[in-house]
Amino acid sequence: MPAEQAVVPVSDRGFLYGDSIFETVRAYGGKAFAGADHYQRLAESAKSVGIALPFGKSAFLTILDELLAANDLLDAMVRVTVSRGSGPAPVPDPSGCHSPTVVAMARPAPRLDEATWSRGIGAVVVPVQSTPKAVLNPTVKSGNFLSHILAIVHAKAHDTGEGAVEAILLDSKGRVAEGAVSNVFGVWNGTLNTPAADGDILPGITRKLVLDLARSLSIPVREGAISGLDLGDADELFVTNSGWEVMPVTRLNGVVLADGRVGPITRRLHEAYQKKVMASC
Amino acid sequence: MPAEQAVVPVSDRGFLYGDSIFETVRAYGGKAFAGADHYQRLAESAKSVGIALPFGKSAFLTILDELLAANDLLDAMVRVTVSRGSGPAPVPDPSGCHSPTVVAMARPAPRLDEATWSRGIGAVVVPVQSTPKAVLNPTVKSGNFLSHILAIVHAKAHDTGEGAVEAILLDSKGRVAEGAVSNVFGVWNGTLNTPAADGDILPGITRKLVLDLARSLSIPVREGAISGLDLGDADELFVTNSGWEVMPVTRLNGVVLADGRVGPITRRLHEAYQKKVMASC
Repeated sequence: MPAEQAVVPVSDRGFLYGDSIFETVRAYGGKAFAGADHYQRLAESAKSVGIALPFGKSAFLTILDELLAANDLLDAMVRVTVSRGSGPAPVPDPSGCHSPTVVAMARPAPRLDEATWSRGIGAVVVPVQSTPKAVLNPTVKSGNFLSHILAIVHAKAHDTGEGAVEAILLDSKGRVAEGAVSNVFGVWNGTLNTPAADGDILPGITRKLVLDLARSLSIPVREGAISGLDLGDADELFVTNSGWEVMPVTRLNGVVLADGRVGPITRRLHEAYQKKVMASC
Repeated sequence: MPAEQAVVPVSDRGFLYGDSIFETVRAYGGKAFAGADHYQRLAESAKSVGIALPFGKSAFLTILDELLAANDLLDAMVRVTVSRGSGPAPVPDPSGCHSPTVVAMARPAPRLDEATWSRGIGAVVVPVQSTPKAVLNPTVKSGNFLSHILAIVHAKAHDTGEGAVEAILLDSKGRVAEGAVSNVFGVWNGTLNTPAADGDILPGITRKLVLDLARSLSIPVREGAISGLDLGDADELFVTNSGWEVMPVTRLNGVVLADGRVGPITRRLHEAYQKKVMASC
């Protein structure tokens, strides 16, 4: 149905409490990219918060295919949200909530041309701390997004350039955790660095893909702590998610990095990623 | 309209991201209790997250009155949710979202009889940490409720009795922060203790009312740190929110406290609160 006709009850716990999980899947040429990986993560999110997924992997992939076909979409983003549904009463206790709500929505997402990509985006280190594990399992991609939303608002207010901006969140020890909607990578002395997957981060599907590509290209890789203070000294910076793919960061905290040029490791990974995309569709 | 016909678009950011704020207001005899205080807090939540409230105090109070009247409700709970509405695209960046969604929903909530009240409820200290200020302003009553929901699930699984259970969250230093849906009070040696309002807590409207009542009754009051380890030694424990009012905690971590009897300070505050309720309607 047209997105503007799709509704959920006001009693839906996704609306009342952010009591939901979701995935955002990239599609190229009408085909979902890394769909099985997204299903796997959704299943893990569901298990962690105690929502019984009402579909298996093949049904999930079919939903993606059918939604793309019904909308005549080739290059697109599909968001699949699964909320805990409505309970007997609008109270936080989820007892008696056994009918999850599933919403899949698609929108066109043209592939970036080379000129746009190579301009990169801005990033701002924000005074919003990443959510500690002890509060909420950060590997759950949940509908509790408010702190990241406010992080983005802060980042946009402190960037100096045009176009997209990402917020970079640090953990309680001042180490880089993640972007508001991405994972963060930096290159120092030829080594690709990214925060370890067991930190207070959501280790993205694109993050893993990029690490695999880096290793296959024999680029030295280190998954470990990065001080927020060291970010500005990086030779190259980029962020990843399924929509941005490998996206250069060419401004940090309002300062243009390396004359705004994209570094060689970022470019190699971008090209390898594009090959993978081309091979998929 | 009937609650089951009330819907929001799937693109509503309340549903997609928990990008919303809310208040839960108690009504007695068809009149909202402490309605102006709830408006004040809602306005502060709205300011903190950057949602422009589409109504002022008198309109808010009118919404409550009219909803109660339209539903022929005397003793009731009203939840007013204000989400950031739908944006131009379903992405976390809230730019271009200028039409908040307002949903007010009411349900009957009979007043507790004395026998039910004096049985109290169970409480369980859970391994879910309260959200640090650096992550999200805890005084914002927002639609990001997932960690508290999981706290309740844990508490229910670890209680031994019948009836309601509250989860008690500690902060990163092991100090009592708050209940999942309440504020926590304990009595030691005749002094009423509750975590200070500037901790990682949402200082409730009922909490403030109860502190005011305690002071007017010349009960010694201390707002300050309470170690989670000391809770079991309290002479009396209770929790407060607009629905539970002053609710005795008669089981902690599955162990019955003081033979399940309600302590004298809890009872005095309960009686004073009831007088206030009676005077309001």
